[in-house]
Parts: sequence; structure tokens; C-alpha cells
Amino acid sequence: MNNFLDSLKQENMSLFTDFYELTMCASYFDNNNFEPATFDLFIRRLPENRSYFLFAGLEQSLQYLQTIHFSEEHLDYLKNQGFGADFLDYLAGFSFSGDVWAIPEGTVAFPNEPLIRITAPIIEAQLVETFLLNTVNLQTMMATKASRIVHAAKGKSIIEFGLRREHGIDAGMKVARSSYIAGCQGSSNVLAGLAYGIPVFGTMAHSFVMSYPKEIDAFRAFSKTFPNNSTLLIDTYNDIAGAEKAAAVAKELEAKGFRLGGVRLDSGDLTKTSKQVRKILDEQGLEYVKIFASGDLDEYQISQLLKDEARIDAFGVGTKMGTSADRPYLDVIYKLCETMNPEETFSPIMKLSKDKNTLPGRKQVFRSKSKDGFYQKDTIALTEEKIEGDPLLSKVMDRGKLSYKLPSLLEIRCSAQENIFKLPAPYKELTNAPTYPVELSLKLQDLIKTLKSQLTQNEILHKS
Amino acid sequence: MNNFLDSLKQENMSLFTDFYELTMCASYFDNNNFEPATFDLFIRRLPENRSYFLFAGLEQSLQYLQTIHFSEEHLDYLKNQGFGADFLDYLAGFSFSGDVWAIPEGTVAFPNEPLIRITAPIIEAQLVETFLLNTVNLQTMMATKASRIVHAAKGKSIIEFGLRREHGIDAGMKVARSSYIAGCQGSSNVLAGLAYGIPVFGTMAHSFVMSYPKEIDAFRAFSKTFPNNSTLLIDTYNDIAGAEKAAAVAKELEAKGFRLGGVRLDSGDLTKTSKQVRKILDEQGLEYVKIFASGDLDEYQISQLLKDEARIDAFGVGTKMGTSADRPYLDVIYKLCETMNPEETFSPIMKLSKDKNTLPGRKQVFRSKSKDGFYQKDTIALTEEKIEGDPLLSKVMDRGKLSYKLPSLLEIRCSAQENIFKLPAPYKELTNAPTYPVELSLKLQDLIKTLKSQLTQNEILHKS
Repeated sequence: MNNFLDSLKQENMSLFTDFYELTMCASYFDNNNFEPATFDLFIRRLPENRSYFLFAGLEQSLQYLQTIHFSEEHLDYLKNQGFGADFLDYLAGFSFSGDVWAIPEGTVAFPNEPLIRITAPIIEAQLVETFLLNTVNLQTMMATKASRIVHAAKGKSIIEFGLRREHGIDAGMKVARSSYIAGCQGSSNVLAGLAYGIPVFGTMAHSFVMSYPKEIDAFRAFSKTFPNNSTLLIDTYNDIAGAEKAAAVAKELEAKGFRLGGVRLDSGDLTKTSKQVRKILDEQGLEYVKIFASGDLDEYQISQLLKDEARIDAFGVGTKMGTSADRPYLDVIYKLCETMNPEETFSPIMKLSKDKNTLPGRKQVFRSKSKDGFYQKDTIALTEEKIEGDPLLSKVMDRGKLSYKLPSLLEIRCSAQENIFKLPAPYKELTNAPTYPVELSLKLQDLIKTLKSQLTQNEILHKS
Repeated sequence: MNNFLDSLKQENMSLFTDFYELTMCASYFDNNNFEPATFDLFIRRLPENRSYFLFAGLEQSLQYLQTIHFSEEHLDYLKNQGFGADFLDYLAGFSFSGDVWAIPEGTVAFPNEPLIRITAPIIEAQLVETFLLNTVNLQTMMATKASRIVHAAKGKSIIEFGLRREHGIDAGMKVARSSYIAGCQGSSNVLAGLAYGIPVFGTMAHSFVMSYPKEIDAFRAFSKTFPNNSTLLIDTYNDIAGAEKAAAVAKELEAKGFRLGGVRLDSGDLTKTSKQVRKILDEQGLEYVKIFASGDLDEYQISQLLKDEARIDAFGVGTKMGTSADRPYLDVIYKLCETMNPEETFSPIMKLSKDKNTLPGRKQVFRSKSKDGFYQKDTIALTEEKIEGDPLLSKVMDRGKLSYKLPSLLEIRCSAQENIFKLPAPYKELTNAPTYPVELSLKLQDLIKTLKSQLTQNEILHKS
């Protein structure tokens, strides 16, 4: 087996994990630790300029948890890596048997809020860390970035065009999915169209224009094939000359009873050129021909173009959205927050490293709303507390079985739209947005204080 | 079909493409254009701080070209997207039948140099654009980034640790592959170990430490399972106290005839802490215990740590390498450079947009070396020219069949090592490296001048 596609045929991604998950599990096994523990998956902090996250990736996380198992090929490989026979026997019968709580995809979330909470025998809960982080990082990062771009476009359409520079096959698929959740109108990725039912869009490339002896011949050839929905790329040689040729072809189409769909600009000063092109088109009575813009766009550029009153009807956004170029990762982490103690009850635990404390105990997030339904404040609390607001986490897996009706992609997209709508406007500013209030319940604060003093006493002052 | 893994089972990635490739192909078909054409895949410019590229991704590109075809499910989907019956019949019999030239994986390359050159009927050559760009972008970007990090470490080991924040499954696999090509010692990704034979490494996570009532119990439990190759993570609560406990466990192991492998630092001031930890270990006669560092590392930080004489033996590098965080994409493009004219000979062609000209004609890259074998200068020339230096592109596919013995991953890795060695030192500086000289042959320069003036005359001055 020597290629990625073959390796994916196994449908289960058990070895798509950091090696240390397996060594830790081997040690838990070796030390007879099969007790349940709880882990939180959350994001430590907001990247610069981000003021919220749009959560995505739950469906794939749950699919992973339902299918993870170890094949003979896996076990042979692990044997060669030095794992013992007893542990491999255990892995041969492995399946995930835990409880999972999560917030729904398309929910607005903030730092330190548990997005997924897993309670399972510690070996199972540990082993699944890497895949869950990978999946939530990719989709939540991309949904968040796309949500900012959609917001910047103030109702004009955004099409996701980044397939050629997204990070491989899976990213190509998941960027299409998560940017659609965030409100993009569709994607250029045809496989995402087939796999997820996302609308697909496209225009033409410079190579098509260059393949004809004359630019206008390329325009004529393309609009012969698609007489009513062609978008002609007009900047291969010179955008103004290209616009005049597109207008000529549009008039030829009109004479045959057809209408040119649009023209696309992919370079240069888009504000200035779009105004010139609009004028050329309008002077010929082609007010219906749309102007489509692409080329290195992101939320900041789109916002500026609209401020400058560029005459652009829709945007194709590629690389900078599809790689989340200004911040291509989230500080997403997966931390133990409770273990079972010898008295067979759960003990809350926490990490104390410099600037990297975690929140102990089994937690819920409560979201308070204003009278008119806008988000006002979140409170992270222990599950046993009664706190004002709607609980965000609900049970999605019960003892290893899905206990949640997976929403359709359209339902997730609608939910995302509603979530973004309910987030008050200041938090959606592209830069210098205020910090949305996320509080810790008094009980949780007390627990942190107690544990901090215990840990300082036991682990730092008395060093061994 | 509703998930990514299912969609990948088809083993061929024909729909993993931008929609416009298909609309352009439909129009070529509709206009009876089945003539051959040549496309170059190249990178337009170097990102800031990069001074070379390390090419990777050819094996997967060739695998794609050999397997692309359209299934009934694909054709049904395309029918629903409005493509005509004749074109769909053509796609039903589609396979790639072109010639492919490429530079070997692991070769150092520079802007505008063709990395892959395809001559095929224009529909075939056009259709494969998106996948090839996606694959070469990901792997070349990652091999280049990893090569800088390996260089910064001046011979100390780098392990690729980024799986949790790499962009999805395919990126997780390909980052492991391309960073191994670039000289990393291995990866944490177990599936990459199985799929590619890459050595896998791991230590332990904070959760393992936290799962025990006392940190030292966690150290004892782990080193019970792996008595001779444990690396203990010592910063869960306090790194100095952690080092003292690790030293105590190391002495306990010694008493049983074992040796602790190492300790890992994952936060804080790594220079200062590593010196303190080294002292604690050495004072107990534990000079053999290695110090491993991780946590937000990249080439700049590693270079600084080594300048500051941090006592670190090996580095785990994750997110910033695995996402190429300072520049998560390359300006990789795929441009038409010749078409067949009505006289059945090839005509060179070029694009003329502002600042985005392309190089016309079928080209080869010649690399000149100094007497002692160091790279001196590259020349991009037309294939029919005789130029000093070694030609970099060779034929890898002949009329759709592989005509090239794919090197093993280890061979590619050795070749990369040799390439980086032969690149003179100044070009490997992490910042402010000089520009490696890449010249255009006089014949190519003349051709550009002629075409530029023709295009200006035909497409811009005489506008339609």
C-alpha cells in the first residue's frame, strides 16, 4: 500500500493519529487503567481580528467515532512498531463506546467553550484526540473565515474558488462544505457538488482565451456553447479592450435572442476597472450583464471595494479564504477535565502551565439572550449548576451509538445564518471588534481556586 | 453518497476539479477543438523570505493522470448540471493520453521554471489543471517550508508533529511525506508510517500526566511500559519541578538497569528552561537523557534557540510547519504556452495581463554548475535550443503511459538532500537571501518581444 487513496479505502481512520496517543494508550492498558475520563475539545484563544468562531466539523467527527477500528494490516504495523501482544489484542476488539456532547454545527462559539465533550474509558477518549482536533480545526477555521468574507460582502454573492490552492483533497472538500455553511453561494469544486449537493459555479480561464487566435473568437466560441449563461473573462490581454469585445459578443447574442451572463475581472484596480467596464456595458444597453470579480480577494479587500463603490455584482474568493491565509490554524486543543478516582466518583482536574491553564470538571455553556433574541453573554458552568440561558451542548452519542439526528447541510447553513444574525453587530466588525462576554460560573471559579492551590502544594512546592 | 471517504473510494479524482474546467472542455468539444496544446505548471514568484522551492508532488500527479476517468455516477451528476449528451459520451470514454515532462521530486526550483509540462489534446490538458495545481501546491509548499526548518536546525533532528492542525486528512498525509523528503527524521502521523514507511515518533501528552493523582506517578507508569525509550513531558504543572521528578524516575530506572530516553519541554522560555533542566539532569549523572523541545516552533525560533545556545537535542515542529503558517500557499499556476495552428504545427502563445505575463513556447530548464558542483545559474530556453547546463525536465509519461521509474521515497529524500547541499549557502539564508539567477535564453526573449508586439497590435489597439 503506497498511496493515500488506497489508505482511505479502509473507511476507518484509526491510524490517522499521533503516535503518542498509541503509546499513552499502551501505558494506560499496561497499568490497568480502563476507568472513564472526560475530555473537552475547545479553542484556547481568538486569532487576531477574529471575534467569534463558527463551529463546523461535528458530522465528520461523529462519523469517525462510529467507524474507528483496527484492521489486521493496522495491527501488523503496530506490532512492528513494538507494541505488545496483549495491547494489540485489546485494539483488535476496539470500538468507541463513550458518551459525546457537542454544540451543533453552525453555532457561534468563543474561546474556552467546550465544543465537543467526551466521556469514555480513558484509552478510547485519548485515542480519538488527533482526528477530532484535525477535523474541527479545519472546518471551524474555514467556516469562521468564510463567515467574515460573507459578512464583508453585505449581501453580494461569494463563490468559493480556492480548490487549486487548498491543502489537498480533504481540505478541498471541507472548505467547500464549511464555506457553504457560512453563507457562500456555492463552490467551484465539482466533487463537492456531487458529495454534498453544494451548488457549483465557474466561468472560464485565461487559457481558454489564449487557445484562440483572437480573444473575440474565444468569447464567441464559449457563448455558442453556453448562449444564456456565459461569464467571459476579459483581462487576458487588456481589460478595457476585453470589455469592448465582450459587449460586441453580447450584442451578437441579443440578435439571436440570447443574453450574455456576465464578465469577469481577475486583476488590476478592480474599483476603477469595474466602473469603466460598467460604463462600456451600459452604453450599449447591457445593464443586465453582471460584473464578477476575483483575484486575491479577502474580507478586507471586499470591504474596501464596496466602500469605494466598485461596480461589482459578485465575488469569486479563492486562496485567501481556502487557506485562511492570514491565520491558517486555530489554537484548538483537547484536554482532560475529569477522571474517576478510587472511590468510583469523578474528580475534576486541570492543567497549570504558564498561561495555559485549563478549566476543570464536566461543563456546559449557557447563552443568555436579550429580549429581542440577540446574544448577550455566555457562562461556562459545571453541568450540575442551574444557570440562566440556553445550554449549548447536547448529547449526540450515547455509549458509542449516535443519539442525535444529524441535520442536513442546508439546515446547518440556515442555523449558521440565524446564529450570525443574532450576534450583535459590533462583534462582527472585521477589525477591533469588542470581546464578547464569556464568564465562568462562581462554582467553577471556586473549583479552579481550590485545584490551583492543591496542585501548587502537591506538584510544585513538594516536588516529588 | 454523503461523505468524503465514500467519495474517495472511486480512486479516480476526475470531479475534483473547478467547474470551469468542465465548461471550457464542453466548449472545446462543441467547437471541435481536439488539437494538442502544451501547458506549463510553474510558480509565479517566491513568497517573502523564501529563496528557492523544493519540488514535491509528482508521484501523486502521475497517479492521478493514470487513473482519471468518469463513472456513471459522475456522468449522471454532470447531466443534471446541464452538460449535453455528446460531451458526456465523450467523457464516458475519457482517459489521459498526453505526454508529460517534469523535474524530479526533491529538486530545487525557482520562479517561472516549468515544473510539469503537459502536451495533450487541449480538452485533456485543460481538465487536469485543478488537481495538479492542488497537489503540487501542497507538497512543494510543505517541502520548501520543512527544508528551511531542517536547515535552521543545523543537523539536530526535526520531527513533524503537526497532524492535529494540518488541513484535513490529505494534508496530514502529504505534510508527513513532503517534510520527510525535505529532511525531517519522521512524523507523529502513524498512518503516514504505514502508508509511506516514514519513521514515526511520539512522547506523551499533558492529559497522560493529569490522569494520575501525582505527576511522578504518571512518569513511573509510562516508563514502566516503555522502560528504555520514554520521553517524559515535564511542563504540565511546573517545568523545573517536573525535571526533578523526571530525574528521580530516571534514577529509579537506572537501579533496574534501564535508561530514561528524554524529557520534553512544550512551553515557556525554552532557552532558559533547557539550560536549567540540563543542569538538573547532569547533576544527577543523567547526561544521556535528551532534551526534546516543542511548542509553536518554526525556522526563525529554532535558529534563535541555537544562537542562544539552548540545550536542546531535538525539535518537534507542528502547526507552523504543517500549515506553512507564514505563507500557506504558493503562487502556483498552469498556463497554456502553445497550441496547434491550422497548418498543423505548434504556435507559441502567451498571456499579457498587467504584471502577469507568461513565457511562450515549449521550454526546458538548464542548470549550470560550478567546477565543484554547486548550482550557479539556470536558463529557461526553448526545447530546440542548445544551452549549457543540465536539462531538468525529463519525459515521465508517453502518450498517457508512465515512462519513468518512480523513485522510492528514500531516493527522493536523498536527492533533496543533495540538491540542498549543492545550492550555495547564501541562498539558504532564512531572511534576505540573494536572488538565484534564472535567465531567459536570447531566443526566448526574442519570441516574447515578437508576441508582445503582435498581441498589443491585434488585441489592444485593434480592439475587436
